[in-house]
Amino acid sequence: MALPPLPRLLVEPIVRAALLEDLGRAGDVTTDSVIPTEARFDAVIASRQPGVIAGIDAAVIAFELIDPSLGIVVERRDGATVAPGDVVMRINGSARAILTAERVALNIACRMSGVATATASLVEIARRHGKAHIVCTRKTTPGLRALEKHAVKAGGGSNHRFGLDDAVLIKDNHIAVAGGVVPAIRAAKAHAGHMVKIEVEVDTLAQLEEAMAEGVDAVLLDNMTPPVLREAVSIVGGRALTEASGRVSRETVGPIAASGVDLISVGWITHSAPILDLGLDAASV
Amino acid sequence: MALPPLPRLLVEPIVRAALLEDLGRAGDVTTDSVIPTEARFDAVIASRQPGVIAGIDAAVIAFELIDPSLGIVVERRDGATVAPGDVVMRINGSARAILTAERVALNIACRMSGVATATASLVEIARRHGKAHIVCTRKTTPGLRALEKHAVKAGGGSNHRFGLDDAVLIKDNHIAVAGGVVPAIRAAKAHAGHMVKIEVEVDTLAQLEEAMAEGVDAVLLDNMTPPVLREAVSIVGGRALTEASGRVSRETVGPIAASGVDLISVGWITHSAPILDLGLDAASV
Amino acid sequence: MALPPLPRLLVEPIVRAALLEDLGRAGDVTTDSVIPTEARFDAVIASRQPGVIAGIDAAVIAFELIDPSLGIVVERRDGATVAPGDVVMRINGSARAILTAERVALNIACRMSGVATATASLVEIARRHGKAHIVCTRKTTPGLRALEKHAVKAGGGSNHRFGLDDAVLIKDNHIAVAGGVVPAIRAAKAHAGHMVKIEVEVDTLAQLEEAMAEGVDAVLLDNMTPPVLREAVSIVGGRALTEASGRVSRETVGPIAASGVDLISVGWITHSAPILDLGLDAASV
Amino acid sequence: MALPPLPRLLVEPIVRAALLEDLGRAGDVTTDSVIPTEARFDAVIASRQPGVIAGIDAAVIAFELIDPSLGIVVERRDGATVAPGDVVMRINGSARAILTAERVALNIACRMSGVATATASLVEIARRHGKAHIVCTRKTTPGLRALEKHAVKAGGGSNHRFGLDDAVLIKDNHIAVAGGVVPAIRAAKAHAGHMVKIEVEVDTLAQLEEAMAEGVDAVLLDNMTPPVLREAVSIVGGRALTEASGRVSRETVGPIAASGVDLISVGWITHSAPILDLGLDAASV
Amino acid sequence: MALPPLPRLLVEPIVRAALLEDLGRAGDVTTDSVIPTEARFDAVIASRQPGVIAGIDAAVIAFELIDPSLGIVVERRDGATVAPGDVVMRINGSARAILTAERVALNIACRMSGVATATASLVEIARRHGKAHIVCTRKTTPGLRALEKHAVKAGGGSNHRFGLDDAVLIKDNHIAVAGGVVPAIRAAKAHAGHMVKIEVEVDTLAQLEEAMAEGVDAVLLDNMTPPVLREAVSIVGGRALTEASGRVSRETVGPIAASGVDLISVGWITHSAPILDLGLDAASV
Amino acid sequence: MALPPLPRLLVEPIVRAALLEDLGRAGDVTTDSVIPTEARFDAVIASRQPGVIAGIDAAVIAFELIDPSLGIVVERRDGATVAPGDVVMRINGSARAILTAERVALNIACRMSGVATATASLVEIARRHGKAHIVCTRKTTPGLRALEKHAVKAGGGSNHRFGLDDAVLIKDNHIAVAGGVVPAIRAAKAHAGHMVKIEVEVDTLAQLEEAMAEGVDAVLLDNMTPPVLREAVSIVGGRALTEASGRVSRETVGPIAASGVDLISVGWITHSAPILDLGLDAASV
Repeated sequence: MALPPLPRLLVEPIVRAALLEDLGRAGDVTTDSVIPTEARFDAVIASRQPGVIAGIDAAVIAFELIDPSLGIVVERRDGATVAPGDVVMRINGSARAILTAERVALNIACRMSGVATATASLVEIARRHGKAHIVCTRKTTPGLRALEKHAVKAGGGSNHRFGLDDAVLIKDNHIAVAGGVVPAIRAAKAHAGHMVKIEVEVDTLAQLEEAMAEGVDAVLLDNMTPPVLREAVSIVGGRALTEASGRVSRETVGPIAASGVDLISVGWITHSAPILDLGLDAASV
Repeated sequence: MALPPLPRLLVEPIVRAALLEDLGRAGDVTTDSVIPTEARFDAVIASRQPGVIAGIDAAVIAFELIDPSLGIVVERRDGATVAPGDVVMRINGSARAILTAERVALNIACRMSGVATATASLVEIARRHGKAHIVCTRKTTPGLRALEKHAVKAGGGSNHRFGLDDAVLIKDNHIAVAGGVVPAIRAAKAHAGHMVKIEVEVDTLAQLEEAMAEGVDAVLLDNMTPPVLREAVSIVGGRALTEASGRVSRETVGPIAASGVDLISVGWITHSAPILDLGLDAASV
Repeated sequence: MALPPLPRLLVEPIVRAALLEDLGRAGDVTTDSVIPTEARFDAVIASRQPGVIAGIDAAVIAFELIDPSLGIVVERRDGATVAPGDVVMRINGSARAILTAERVALNIACRMSGVATATASLVEIARRHGKAHIVCTRKTTPGLRALEKHAVKAGGGSNHRFGLDDAVLIKDNHIAVAGGVVPAIRAAKAHAGHMVKIEVEVDTLAQLEEAMAEGVDAVLLDNMTPPVLREAVSIVGGRALTEASGRVSRETVGPIAASGVDLISVGWITHSAPILDLGLDAASV
Repeated sequence: MALPPLPRLLVEPIVRAALLEDLGRAGDVTTDSVIPTEARFDAVIASRQPGVIAGIDAAVIAFELIDPSLGIVVERRDGATVAPGDVVMRINGSARAILTAERVALNIACRMSGVATATASLVEIARRHGKAHIVCTRKTTPGLRALEKHAVKAGGGSNHRFGLDDAVLIKDNHIAVAGGVVPAIRAAKAHAGHMVKIEVEVDTLAQLEEAMAEGVDAVLLDNMTPPVLREAVSIVGGRALTEASGRVSRETVGPIAASGVDLISVGWITHSAPILDLGLDAASV
Repeated sequence: MALPPLPRLLVEPIVRAALLEDLGRAGDVTTDSVIPTEARFDAVIASRQPGVIAGIDAAVIAFELIDPSLGIVVERRDGATVAPGDVVMRINGSARAILTAERVALNIACRMSGVATATASLVEIARRHGKAHIVCTRKTTPGLRALEKHAVKAGGGSNHRFGLDDAVLIKDNHIAVAGGVVPAIRAAKAHAGHMVKIEVEVDTLAQLEEAMAEGVDAVLLDNMTPPVLREAVSIVGGRALTEASGRVSRETVGPIAASGVDLISVGWITHSAPILDLGLDAASV
Repeated sequence: MALPPLPRLLVEPIVRAALLEDLGRAGDVTTDSVIPTEARFDAVIASRQPGVIAGIDAAVIAFELIDPSLGIVVERRDGATVAPGDVVMRINGSARAILTAERVALNIACRMSGVATATASLVEIARRHGKAHIVCTRKTTPGLRALEKHAVKAGGGSNHRFGLDDAVLIKDNHIAVAGGVVPAIRAAKAHAGHMVKIEVEVDTLAQLEEAMAEGVDAVLLDNMTPPVLREAVSIVGGRALTEASGRVSRETVGPIAASGVDLISVGWITHSAPILDLGLDAASV
């Protein structure tokens, strides 16, 4: 099944705010001065790098919000793989409108495609070494979490929790303040709702044994080497999901996946992925 | 003079929105379940990498918005250089509040410090080769332009225009639609306000000659090699600011700066800089 | 552990909007005309019915937003049981401020206390007959979901999912369109994130067997009689959480709880609970 | 004349906020996982109880905001009486869109229809005993006052003031602080605008005499028995509108109306009315 | 009794928006560049013209929002009369903060004082000729109605309705479409709430007779000469409020007031009043 | 080239807020009571005074937001000159919608046309005496700066900076605190971005000489007489733009323009211009 788009109700306010941020108080003074009202433009957005596309719906909304009469054809939807030169979108209509919306449309699409591309590069390696899904974290750009989580899915990854409220993740500082893995897990079970999964971060196999004795939905195996991860997976024995995290890179993801973990979570696919370079040009005839 | 902070009026709404994005509808279910109301925590935010700090005011606001009674001491302000292990901020008070605000505070500070660090790395090289300032572009994260432009300044860079409305920048597509450099510049002069500077992008020295004959405040020399840039600087002869752009990296910025241009604009310091890794830990005694 | 309060960041916008809705464009024309600026008032909010308190933090915020200098003492926090005449809160200071904020403070506190009281009445009965938790649904008042879910917890209940995004609940219409229980569960497992629990609504024991064969986190046993529920609980045999729903009232909740289900979900505690009558009066000496 | 609809400008923001509250950060994960993109659904919203409809425009907006291409036919407009099984609205189109919008549409329509139904039940009784209009109060749900006041009109009731700013209502606490009925009325007359009506709450016939001697537009006769109300009406003698309030129920409203008062104000039709049970089902062929 | 201030809850959002409009995306680049962080400034806001002050609370909020640590002393509150040179407010503290907030503070205070001054000039003349109150209309600045209506009161005037929803005012176009004064009044009485006053605009004495025969709360006597107004007042004979409107100026307001009308409504005090010139200067020693 | 319209994205929120301010919580109670649902109205907005039109796009949006099905024909666009009686816009459709939107549409269009008309009156005189452009200031109505700056352009004027962030304007208080013209200019040059112009206010020719020795983009010649202005222009000698300000009126603008300055800035065209009287009437046949 194709990746379902995010509801427009979630995406449009982000695009609108980005346009207002760029238009300021006076709009596009360059275009308004230089481009005649009646000028038409026939543009394409094409990729200048190989990668995976995301954020296209948002780019479409950017053009529509500036001028609902623009003709827009999407050639590559979120999740599509592109080679350099591949046309992602065609936009036809008022030159003023296209040039005014261009930067915001590209800023969102390049960034989200960058997230998707970074994710895909890890997904591909992980797939060759094991069954692990690549999942994102809460280390997302302020204000863009929904879009970035969606871009991770476009890149073939999966989503971890969306915020502080939709799952319990007991981390090292929680354990330290709560006085250990066991009291922390018990407190979580006593207070969390029945539809909320509970995951606990463990730094050692001893902590892992404690956690499994209490029972949790998932364990976050933090900064463990592949051999230790393998042992951890064996200890868990299918009683919980196993998630590896820490120092995940294109170099390390293969061995980590080969350890048999279910999930590998990676912060940098959202916080440090470079953009995918998309550009808007005049359509060639 | 120290870098003046951004007005809180501009920063607080961004932080508030980021916190609400993370809190969702139910707040921090982990912390609320696991951490006793009365638990206190004595935390530090320290850098795990060498770099330049930015976004600290926003991080402070994140903690304050969750709990105005937290004790906060800023050890390194925006623009400060840090080594691994350097403490950037100390936070003392309710463990719940600190753990709830942690991620949002770090998400902003890590990202802005990443922008500042990337900028500083280019600034340092450019300074050794010439007088050129490193300047950012409009290729910023949607919703975070003010913060990212400020982070560029924290890294020693300068700001280009803030949006479509505060300066004229005639780019290749404008020139194509307007019918050439000369009609575009004339139209801009006829319509732009007297407090608005006019810059024009030129791809060739022929276009540059045309632009200088009309007179502009600045020229954007796009994708020219250092030798061509040197010739361009000579043609301009101080009659306008010269700005180089295109394929600027740590490798190329030195030769570009050596060409004598006034400004080097770089998109990747805002759109593709990796974060600076800052972490929150229990303060050691 | 006491019920943790909702983050002020979530509550304050709701209270602010309610005050602006009441103040309109001209503020409190009665109080401004009739009450001298310097008049002081010493008020109590007391309950006129037996019940359980909720929404008190929001009521406090209402008074603070009108006048931060008011002296406020909370006598009964969310979750406290009250008898008629029990004082819930004391407010002392400007008579104008108190009379202007009164209605909004009461509107929120009465409504949330009504939800808590309705919940508590079911919780108490259920506890006497079994282990079942009373849980709320998404049938909440538009705009007040976070407050109402919190009020349910104040009344001793638990929360079901907070929205469409934090858990999968496959309902009858989903099953109909998806072509059956099995394809629906398989599709959900293929697409939902690993931190998202999956629940499926079943109307018959045959559907239940299908669901259990696929494996889910929870089953919603819709509109089944206590004997059928008992059989369902036996079929599930601890492999999933069992949730009863449909026609739950003070009369039926005991037998339903006695069937051994884990959870009983009830819409009316949020959509049809009458308010708890709280009133503001002059404090007696 | 049919009840004029509320301006969409007032209603749409409420519906939009309710949808965003339900969609959270990730949208409808169940529907997106389980329902194929191309699946169509032919649905009806029907009443499961006898009652009076309100909030239908808001329900339509909920579906439209999720998918403007849905086909929607309204069968019963605000103010219509329905029997169990009566179809209120038909919705045809994308199954995903319909199932995603369903809960918010129903949450608003059920609640508003509940207010209309409660109002209508009192209106009908009052009409048989006298000329009194049933009017609502400011005891409305925070954020929903405009919709609830409109639902009261759909149920045949009338609206009291909309907020603190559009009429003067001098209540017992005002009188106490102002030092009596007479100084309070005089202060109100001195300061209120000429388009603002003045009403005063009186607890005794002595206070009523004082009020009538000063002259007011309306008197609120609080918690008086029908015989005392009758005497009050006689004292007023048509010089002001007479409004009864306090302990109004289906049992007491007849005798109160029979006392000859012009208005009977009731808080519970907005603060404690149970919803009218409307449900969305597949349309039968 | 002194003029009660508008609730801060109503005023602050307007001031905040005005500051953000002025700060743009980068704040005050002049002050941030030119004024040292530690510089202090001791400023006064003084009037350069005779007039009546309004909008001072908003000006105070502007300074507070930029820097809550500024020392602010208000010397003339809303409604005070000032002579040229009179100090209205003193502000002491960070020079940067004061210079950044200055323009917004003055923009609001000058404009509102202009409204108050214009109003006062008419009030004074009207008082010498009759009992008529000067009242404003809905011809206010978009977004500033609450502040401007308050400024009218500071100038000694009264407020007409605040919007389309708080009173009925049947105007010429309504009468034309409704088919006459009588059907229009009857429709209004049938549908408007009991706390809503009804006023009708009449252009002729014949229409006035019709209106009085039906009974209304007020009549708007549009564009009548003083002799006709006098006759109209006599026809009404105290049965309704009489309001004159149309071509009201400093020249005509005396004769209009002398006609005996209760109210004179004037659009230009809100839509065309020139500002009162207030300026911020360094405090002299 | 015709004046480009402001982006709808900037204008619509202002119009929407103005409509909500007028509709309040209940909408147009007069129109809803008096005008039948099905009544149609054929209206024109015509000018009652000679002047220049602005704000027409906003007026159109006001009608569209109330009823998108209205037929609207704009006869005079922003910048058009009108004589009394000239029709500016025709609106045809639901009488209710037209009468509800009327006041807000007129409030914006009358005010903006007032700004344009005031500007045009100065532009015309200035043109006869010299080359000076009439420019506006930051003395604009809070919340309406973008619209008013646009109206100034409709009247033939030019725009000064849009806010504190898009240009440096060193004023008298900055110079006083910074310790003189020279240090202030040097600080500005050191800190302002390269796309930001620098202007300095000078009160004397001595200050002007200092400023020109440092070099700035523009000088603001404050409150100088025409002969002194002439001398100032001569001192500047084309090295910077010269802007005159202070006491500019229809009487003084000619001599000021004749002094040879490039720009004349005027606060009153935005802060004190009377409206242009536009009215809505039934279209004659």
